[in-house]
Amino acid sequence: MNFTPVPDFPSVTPSFQAKLERLKAIVDEHLIPLESLMLAGNQDALEGALAPVKALMKKEGFWLPQVPKDFGGQGFSLYEHGLISEQLGRSMLGHVSCNCQAPDAGNMEVLIERGTPAQQDTFLKPLLTGEIRSAFAMTEPEHAGSNPVIMSTRAVRDGDDYVINGHKWYTTGADGAAFFIVMAVTDPEAAPHEAASQILVPADTKGYRHIRNIAVMGETCWGHNSHAEIEFKDVRVPVSNLIGKEGEGFKIAQQRLGPGRIHHCMRWLGICSRAFELAARYAANRQLTHTQVLGDQQAIQFWLAEMRAEIESARLLVLDTAARIDREGQYAVRNNVSMIKFHTAGVLQRTLDRALQIHGALGMCDDTPIAFWYRHERAARIYDGPDETHKRAFARRLMKEFE
Amino acid sequence: MNFTPVPDFPSVTPSFQAKLERLKAIVDEHLIPLESLMLAGNQDALEGALAPVKALMKKEGFWLPQVPKDFGGQGFSLYEHGLISEQLGRSMLGHVSCNCQAPDAGNMEVLIERGTPAQQDTFLKPLLTGEIRSAFAMTEPEHAGSNPVIMSTRAVRDGDDYVINGHKWYTTGADGAAFFIVMAVTDPEAAPHEAASQILVPADTKGYRHIRNIAVMGETCWGHNSHAEIEFKDVRVPVSNLIGKEGEGFKIAQQRLGPGRIHHCMRWLGICSRAFELAARYAANRQLTHTQVLGDQQAIQFWLAEMRAEIESARLLVLDTAARIDREGQYAVRNNVSMIKFHTAGVLQRTLDRALQIHGALGMCDDTPIAFWYRHERAARIYDGPDETHKRAFARRLMKEFE
Amino acid sequence: MNFTPVPDFPSVTPSFQAKLERLKAIVDEHLIPLESLMLAGNQDALEGALAPVKALMKKEGFWLPQVPKDFGGQGFSLYEHGLISEQLGRSMLGHVSCNCQAPDAGNMEVLIERGTPAQQDTFLKPLLTGEIRSAFAMTEPEHAGSNPVIMSTRAVRDGDDYVINGHKWYTTGADGAAFFIVMAVTDPEAAPHEAASQILVPADTKGYRHIRNIAVMGETCWGHNSHAEIEFKDVRVPVSNLIGKEGEGFKIAQQRLGPGRIHHCMRWLGICSRAFELAARYAANRQLTHTQVLGDQQAIQFWLAEMRAEIESARLLVLDTAARIDREGQYAVRNNVSMIKFHTAGVLQRTLDRALQIHGALGMCDDTPIAFWYRHERAARIYDGPDETHKRAFARRLMKEFE
Amino acid sequence: MNFTPVPDFPSVTPSFQAKLERLKAIVDEHLIPLESLMLAGNQDALEGALAPVKALMKKEGFWLPQVPKDFGGQGFSLYEHGLISEQLGRSMLGHVSCNCQAPDAGNMEVLIERGTPAQQDTFLKPLLTGEIRSAFAMTEPEHAGSNPVIMSTRAVRDGDDYVINGHKWYTTGADGAAFFIVMAVTDPEAAPHEAASQILVPADTKGYRHIRNIAVMGETCWGHNSHAEIEFKDVRVPVSNLIGKEGEGFKIAQQRLGPGRIHHCMRWLGICSRAFELAARYAANRQLTHTQVLGDQQAIQFWLAEMRAEIESARLLVLDTAARIDREGQYAVRNNVSMIKFHTAGVLQRTLDRALQIHGALGMCDDTPIAFWYRHERAARIYDGPDETHKRAFARRLMKEFE
Repeated sequence: MNFTPVPDFPSVTPSFQAKLERLKAIVDEHLIPLESLMLAGNQDALEGALAPVKALMKKEGFWLPQVPKDFGGQGFSLYEHGLISEQLGRSMLGHVSCNCQAPDAGNMEVLIERGTPAQQDTFLKPLLTGEIRSAFAMTEPEHAGSNPVIMSTRAVRDGDDYVINGHKWYTTGADGAAFFIVMAVTDPEAAPHEAASQILVPADTKGYRHIRNIAVMGETCWGHNSHAEIEFKDVRVPVSNLIGKEGEGFKIAQQRLGPGRIHHCMRWLGICSRAFELAARYAANRQLTHTQVLGDQQAIQFWLAEMRAEIESARLLVLDTAARIDREGQYAVRNNVSMIKFHTAGVLQRTLDRALQIHGALGMCDDTPIAFWYRHERAARIYDGPDETHKRAFARRLMKEFE
Repeated sequence: MNFTPVPDFPSVTPSFQAKLERLKAIVDEHLIPLESLMLAGNQDALEGALAPVKALMKKEGFWLPQVPKDFGGQGFSLYEHGLISEQLGRSMLGHVSCNCQAPDAGNMEVLIERGTPAQQDTFLKPLLTGEIRSAFAMTEPEHAGSNPVIMSTRAVRDGDDYVINGHKWYTTGADGAAFFIVMAVTDPEAAPHEAASQILVPADTKGYRHIRNIAVMGETCWGHNSHAEIEFKDVRVPVSNLIGKEGEGFKIAQQRLGPGRIHHCMRWLGICSRAFELAARYAANRQLTHTQVLGDQQAIQFWLAEMRAEIESARLLVLDTAARIDREGQYAVRNNVSMIKFHTAGVLQRTLDRALQIHGALGMCDDTPIAFWYRHERAARIYDGPDETHKRAFARRLMKEFE
Repeated sequence: MNFTPVPDFPSVTPSFQAKLERLKAIVDEHLIPLESLMLAGNQDALEGALAPVKALMKKEGFWLPQVPKDFGGQGFSLYEHGLISEQLGRSMLGHVSCNCQAPDAGNMEVLIERGTPAQQDTFLKPLLTGEIRSAFAMTEPEHAGSNPVIMSTRAVRDGDDYVINGHKWYTTGADGAAFFIVMAVTDPEAAPHEAASQILVPADTKGYRHIRNIAVMGETCWGHNSHAEIEFKDVRVPVSNLIGKEGEGFKIAQQRLGPGRIHHCMRWLGICSRAFELAARYAANRQLTHTQVLGDQQAIQFWLAEMRAEIESARLLVLDTAARIDREGQYAVRNNVSMIKFHTAGVLQRTLDRALQIHGALGMCDDTPIAFWYRHERAARIYDGPDETHKRAFARRLMKEFE
Repeated sequence: MNFTPVPDFPSVTPSFQAKLERLKAIVDEHLIPLESLMLAGNQDALEGALAPVKALMKKEGFWLPQVPKDFGGQGFSLYEHGLISEQLGRSMLGHVSCNCQAPDAGNMEVLIERGTPAQQDTFLKPLLTGEIRSAFAMTEPEHAGSNPVIMSTRAVRDGDDYVINGHKWYTTGADGAAFFIVMAVTDPEAAPHEAASQILVPADTKGYRHIRNIAVMGETCWGHNSHAEIEFKDVRVPVSNLIGKEGEGFKIAQQRLGPGRIHHCMRWLGICSRAFELAARYAANRQLTHTQVLGDQQAIQFWLAEMRAEIESARLLVLDTAARIDREGQYAVRNNVSMIKFHTAGVLQRTLDRALQIHGALGMCDDTPIAFWYRHERAARIYDGPDETHKRAFARRLMKEFE
């Protein structure tokens, strides 16, 4: 542990602080009222209603918060983007309203940093404007997601093309995506971490098949909330669709981890903060008897107290990590990048569980967003590497200092 | 605590033991293959496919296991019924295949014990044969379910009729039910526990309205799995539809608690046992690398070990309680009836959480029944009185011995 | 899991039931009042005061409950002995008052089952009467206790003698013991499980050295409560002091596990039951304000409820295991023997933690036995194999059924 | 929760940062080697060995870190003092070596802020130099410590004197203290929070009696580590020994809470950091087999990962609170002052439990400081108001925002 450092948080400008408050107001006024459309599965009405909010976000300077100004984004630091992401996370419609939802945000990042001008022109530009959506095809049903270097999808060079064959699932947002970044083995003889490459595949390429939207927690969903099982069968794309170099697939995937981690963790903390508000309000006002409200029960008080302490401390941990990535780069603080994943996912799960229990039967149904998050954010302990993988990697590096 | 008694479990006959094993085989062979129809929301196909299984259950002596032989049931003791319920619980289709699902099972019990011959003729008979389904309308959205004696629904005597007005929700199985047992205040001046009565209301009575099937964890479901919001507006039924006497509503509701508790707890333990099997099988066989399976991970081993110890010990606790109710009546062992509720619900939640995590991404989707139970059985800690209510009542009675 | 069996608990005679109640009364009246002598470290006064209680235990038929009648014991089944051990466990003086404390009880068992007539004459007889105490020297500071097959102590054959050299610690009761059963490697070339032997070493043998009583949780203690660091330096004993055959050391050690496990688990549950009583009584009677007692706090109620449910369910699990060992032998139920260790140790720790917190500052001091158990029984998760070892072994065997 | 603010941590000077690193080195080199004297109860040797370390602390500018420069201290802000306290907390001898241990630190604070010049001359001066120690007598065995406003000790005005009668316990450091600050009811008719006063009582006043050092977790200890039961019987002191005004007893006690809370929480985090280091080092180096170390076990890895995440996040929470108190005063951030108490005490307990389990049998004995902290810092969840009190107060204030 060497010497535990004195905290070093950046300061933000008053105008950024004002922006955050404005963003909170927009979420409260414009997005939260639309959540029932989403919960009712009312896709068309929702997309119609979201359009003016997206326009508002563009106008007020929240569109593409994570993207450099040169590419039409807001150019926020990762620390600032974390604070933005927290506010957006308070609604399940937050990130999509600013075009910074997974997996598009990660795909943009990769194309900005590693895309050729031609790739940027074809794939990135319409993604930034929101005209199209995209997907990232890595996980395969036949292999454990916790060990991504074992993969069967193959991309074989044939003249100026790659011919891709493979079977993927949990491809988020595949339904309706205009293109995929596909992780495929290009050199099966290479060391596991250097065997795969990232290749751009338009969804209308021959041989691509959308098998099904997986019923996740009972819901097949649609659009960027859906998770698909897909197939690539003799899919042929030009070699110019390769991102970076052959064999850099995992390296590029690693690079999107740090920023993506901050994005997710702060989004989860936004969820926590909304769930806390809902629970505290319900507890403070729900009559149990003529003289007692629910919040007079000591058990309810304990849950609220514990939720809040867990949320606030985890929030500082994540923001500290964001500030460090800004200062030192994600490789230097990869310990923290592991740590915040499992820690925050645990806080999220416990917070939602308590918020649900405080609401009683109401908590089980979709009259609040809690049940939605309870079932779908259970995946937070699984996606982006299960907790177990991160704990293991983190502890091993920690012990190295004491050998 | 006085003197902790030496355990006293009844023995079962070899033929009953053989019946249990046969039942397990039927569930494995005939019900589990139908679960995907249920998970896909394929109502018609499911009901068609269930019909021959119901016939088989009748033929092999499992139909109405909890009902006295005089009424066409199997006449099992509560202890035996608990063991049956555990086997049925291994599939989400178990109880319905034997016509012992909630709330019909409870309604049958009430009508058998307190129904008039005319009530039995009209309402009970077709319920026992499975021709109709029923519902029990108690919980109201305006009042806390944890304190059921506060209730707004009123039944006012008008000549030979009751005129009922009220608003209920979480009325399980209302969608498609032929009749309701409605809990309504008949004497607002009486002590809270003596204010309400149970009244039979056919679903085709004028003034009854099915407002919606509540979206519970994203699913509105249908039939006995649905939970409705309903309204009674000037609903008029003859006074002869009263069950028992006026003011006995809560007393009769109490009486269904003990057997219902065993039914639910053993059903939950059946779920646990299935979830354990699925998790252990997956862990033992899922390849992580060429030389390792998932179950070589110590974390997975710990979860399996802990799941099993919790399941086995809770199972003995519940079966001991069933045996005591058989011997001493539920009032004498009401401490245990409280205790098994919160204890077993906790075991259920932890078991499902671990089983889901062991399955990783697969655990999030409906390719196994785990995600279904994870989201819907979260309610186990809420329905039938939240954990908190039972802990409180239990502890107060325990402390009485030490004052 | 194959088919979860129907519980099968033996019945006990009414006279045994009466014995249990009598034993509880003796513990309450004669042992609990002496606990303050123990807690104050008042060794001489305690031993003086215990003598008549030991005599009473002999007279009333509780002396050596675990020992066959042929050897002067009570000849109880393991199931009955479990129930006895639970009652004795309610006081920290219980087991010693009946001469069934660790490690003497285990040493008796080994000598009864595997001792030669001469060994029984010399070592066992005075142990049974309580004239002497003994110790079991296995754990070594240089090697992990969780992996006992790695061991440095050597016994080398030299003519008709063994010459033993080794360094042991956590040798319970070494201080004042008349002899040791020493685990020493006799064949370093053999397979690890067949390398060691158990050899009897009188404490007055030349070369034996008592280095120190280890300060365990701040207390060096004395007698059977102490844990020593000891040394064997060229200690020479005749070959006739070998127990069983050469290389059977671990096999014999395994054989004492099952009964020892029941003994410990039921002792822990006795502790739990006493801690629960103390906590419930304190909660029910401690005034917080003029109108409120401590037990009116919902948090206290929850802890009492949870403690009780955990204790009762664990108790059934352990007793079921005892009954199965009686019926089928410990090898057949070694899964249960692993399971009850970690499960019951966890219940014990949580129970003591809650009981301590309920007592507040009083719980921290030795005015009740809770602080003593809190600190010393923390070892329950470590001795006899740490929880982690048992979970691992248990899970591996469970998964075997599903491969 | 209104708007969760952007973190605002102060920066520290490079010279302060260097001081912190120097302090860590002093603790490692000069204090940790003396811990075994403390653990062995070797009072005289310890005090002899500590004297030069105290001189070093004075010379290097760490003596009285929390005291203003005018009074001979270092004048650190609360934030800086928190960072100092963390480093001192790594050894159980840290705070005493700088004369900032409880309860002297709190008594100094009260005398500095509220003491008259005469009181400062007589009581404060020798306390600051370390010539004497002091105690704070509040808790009474007859009343719940969680509700301190109920108190029996009375101080009755008699001419120019107070005559004090009362019975106190858990009076930390009473054994050897030169004086007490006694909390006594001066106006039994007043509102509970205005009934009591703080009065200075020299230990050599007639009528004061030291009844016993309470055996806390088996140890009576001595000096500032001891906790006494004491009696005041017709103790007469001049009215000029009153601190502040009559009836201000609780108000003054409240004022010491905020700084005391930072002191304790950061001390606990220092303990956590040391326990983590010990555990990580042991795990990384302890051989399990010839090819494996303890830290190769996944369970150990998980515990280290979880410990670290909990410690780091709690640390940020406490330091943020310290910074806020510096900026806004403790009243404004009393929510945080409650929150960090129960949250950090929980982290401490879990950290010590895991560190102990990682050490196995070694963790149970006093060959490391872990067992000492495990048993004695169990009190962290009790002293200064039990967790339960803080959770309750915190939650009630949180809910107020949502009514």
